[in-house]
Amino acid sequence: MTKPRSLSVSLGERSYDILIGTTVLAQAGKLMRPLLKSDRVIIITDANLAERHLARLQRALDDAGIRHEHIVVPPGDGSKTLDQLGRLISRLLDLKVERSTTLLALGGGVIGDLAGFAAAVTLRGLDFVQIPTSLLAQVDSSVGGKTGINTAQGKNLIGAFHQPRLVLADTSILTTLPRREMLAGYAEVVKYGLIRDAGFFHWLEAHGADLIDGERAELEHAVLESCRAKAEIVAADERECGQRALLNLGHTFGHALEAETGYGDELLHGEGVAVGMVMAFDLSVQRGHCAPEDADRLRRHLAAVGLPTGFADLAPRHWDVERLIAHMGRDKKVSGGRITFVLVRGIGGAYLETEVELDEVRALFTTALNDADQFALENETSRMTTRATLGS
Amino acid sequence: MTKPRSLSVSLGERSYDILIGTTVLAQAGKLMRPLLKSDRVIIITDANLAERHLARLQRALDDAGIRHEHIVVPPGDGSKTLDQLGRLISRLLDLKVERSTTLLALGGGVIGDLAGFAAAVTLRGLDFVQIPTSLLAQVDSSVGGKTGINTAQGKNLIGAFHQPRLVLADTSILTTLPRREMLAGYAEVVKYGLIRDAGFFHWLEAHGADLIDGERAELEHAVLESCRAKAEIVAADERECGQRALLNLGHTFGHALEAETGYGDELLHGEGVAVGMVMAFDLSVQRGHCAPEDADRLRRHLAAVGLPTGFADLAPRHWDVERLIAHMGRDKKVSGGRITFVLVRGIGGAYLETEVELDEVRALFTTALNDADQFALENETSRMTTRATLGS
Repeated sequence: MTKPRSLSVSLGERSYDILIGTTVLAQAGKLMRPLLKSDRVIIITDANLAERHLARLQRALDDAGIRHEHIVVPPGDGSKTLDQLGRLISRLLDLKVERSTTLLALGGGVIGDLAGFAAAVTLRGLDFVQIPTSLLAQVDSSVGGKTGINTAQGKNLIGAFHQPRLVLADTSILTTLPRREMLAGYAEVVKYGLIRDAGFFHWLEAHGADLIDGERAELEHAVLESCRAKAEIVAADERECGQRALLNLGHTFGHALEAETGYGDELLHGEGVAVGMVMAFDLSVQRGHCAPEDADRLRRHLAAVGLPTGFADLAPRHWDVERLIAHMGRDKKVSGGRITFVLVRGIGGAYLETEVELDEVRALFTTALNDADQFALENETSRMTTRATLGS
Repeated sequence: MTKPRSLSVSLGERSYDILIGTTVLAQAGKLMRPLLKSDRVIIITDANLAERHLARLQRALDDAGIRHEHIVVPPGDGSKTLDQLGRLISRLLDLKVERSTTLLALGGGVIGDLAGFAAAVTLRGLDFVQIPTSLLAQVDSSVGGKTGINTAQGKNLIGAFHQPRLVLADTSILTTLPRREMLAGYAEVVKYGLIRDAGFFHWLEAHGADLIDGERAELEHAVLESCRAKAEIVAADERECGQRALLNLGHTFGHALEAETGYGDELLHGEGVAVGMVMAFDLSVQRGHCAPEDADRLRRHLAAVGLPTGFADLAPRHWDVERLIAHMGRDKKVSGGRITFVLVRGIGGAYLETEVELDEVRALFTTALNDADQFALENETSRMTTRATLGS
């Protein structure tokens, strides 16, 4: 079998490897064996993923002589609740989980966040391995140790920094993903180019469409480069005291949109991030710190691959500026009542900015909503014109 | 005001001080001021403690110009649940807690464990200060960073290692404690002597009764020595990979008794620990590793101050040996299906033992229960004899 590509997240005694390749799932048991404290693991996954990947993982564990059980939680972001966490931990305790047992999170961001948090707090901390099955999870949520659940007040407001012992990213899994999910993950890939690697953004302009179509070489390269970028930032600032916050580019805006749409199918996380990144560029342009050409270039690339770039691309609904701002104020990154924004000096040049007045954000949202209305109106007019023309 | 005695728990960047004295609460604001990330704190306490101590703490915070709010949770171990944790965190989020906000845990073990765990997981980690108000909390639970809640399966099975930024132990508070609570805390004080400081145990034989009566100098000395012992063990093994488990002397047995009695008023934690320590000594004697005189000496001292030493001293109920053993098997310290026991070679000589057969424990429980039955029978006979004599 092919040897996986390997990256290391350097965090002293909490360091771990990210293994990337097309046969990583089939070799999972062999790859994790040396790290296990005992020969017993418990897999946590959801019903959909269990159907697609569980048997393969179980076979790989059997091959390595690792005893395994599994717990299936309901699919979807609705499982990232305190209730579901309680049920999951209760199941673990009923299975007589021990401190030497390792949990395997087989799934996307939801499973990784939930199972990772369960690992962080069950018996005051269990080892866990991330086996991310979505592009989003492979390039972002499985790396860096952020785990958590949502509350009525917002996303990921309860959680822990708990690093996995290993991340196994099997890129061959990704080729079966629904296109919309692939695109949502792709938004986070683009993010790494925008933060500090203009060269990677240029590569994505050339190859993004291919990797979204499932081209293996392109996919593997993108996952590798994304993980490398994330690993470097996390290693430098594990608990987000500074530079790690750059990874939130587009997220403060995106979370506000998600909060308003209920974290559901109406707007996927990555879609919110895509729109949010455009807003971060627009705010940077508005403040005179970024050339409008860079914002346009980002907008063009996201639109070209099929990601939303503004309100006009989202499902129609009444957006209330003050409610969106209130959501932003509830973000974890608020300090002294001020929101920290990730802004840009251009593509590849993100920085943290605490001196943003809420009126600037208000103006940005208002303009964006007016543009969307204008766009809708023009569309309507053009449809009517077309109809009139057709009917004539 | 008197300068508090100071101890340090050395844990690198997570190091912190324990300040012990009779004016620590009145100086709380001044003492914590330099450590706060912002001038805002949220006090977490229960209704009983709020009545007794909240006003004094609030005044101390006002004196230091620290903004404060407070959250009152229901008193008692019943608050250490996932439900109550959810409610507490929800209140914190509604108060718009920020990462720079420090939580103050004003209370006994329950408040410290619950508020400490809330601090560990809210916004992925907030600073917190322990202000322990019971002897048990001052000498044990407030030091060392163990936080957590109970589940249907057992005690503290969900939690985190989350070190406080500071521990403020005001010994003057303790003189108002109900005697039974004071005694329960005293069991943990005795534990430090038993683990590795025979000299301290001898001091306790001479001064224990005085400190339980509230003698200030004795109380302060006992709290200081207990915290010193705990701080040293925690500094050497923060996450209980080895020697820290010695602090569980008497706890594996004690937890089984508590689980069976429902963690309530029938048996306080410290009372369970007192009986459990005697059982640990008896098991050590039974295995031929400890002189019977040491077990007797421990039994005599605990009985002299009024702590229970065996089933005969507990509220009458049917004790089932197999159920007790099953509770022990659910302990966090189980590894590879084996229970790690803290045994002794004598007073001041505790060690970890994984090679205990369950049949030995079965025999121990059976003997202890027979002794208690025998004792009850003798008591009954002597009562009947007395009655007969009186009636004659």
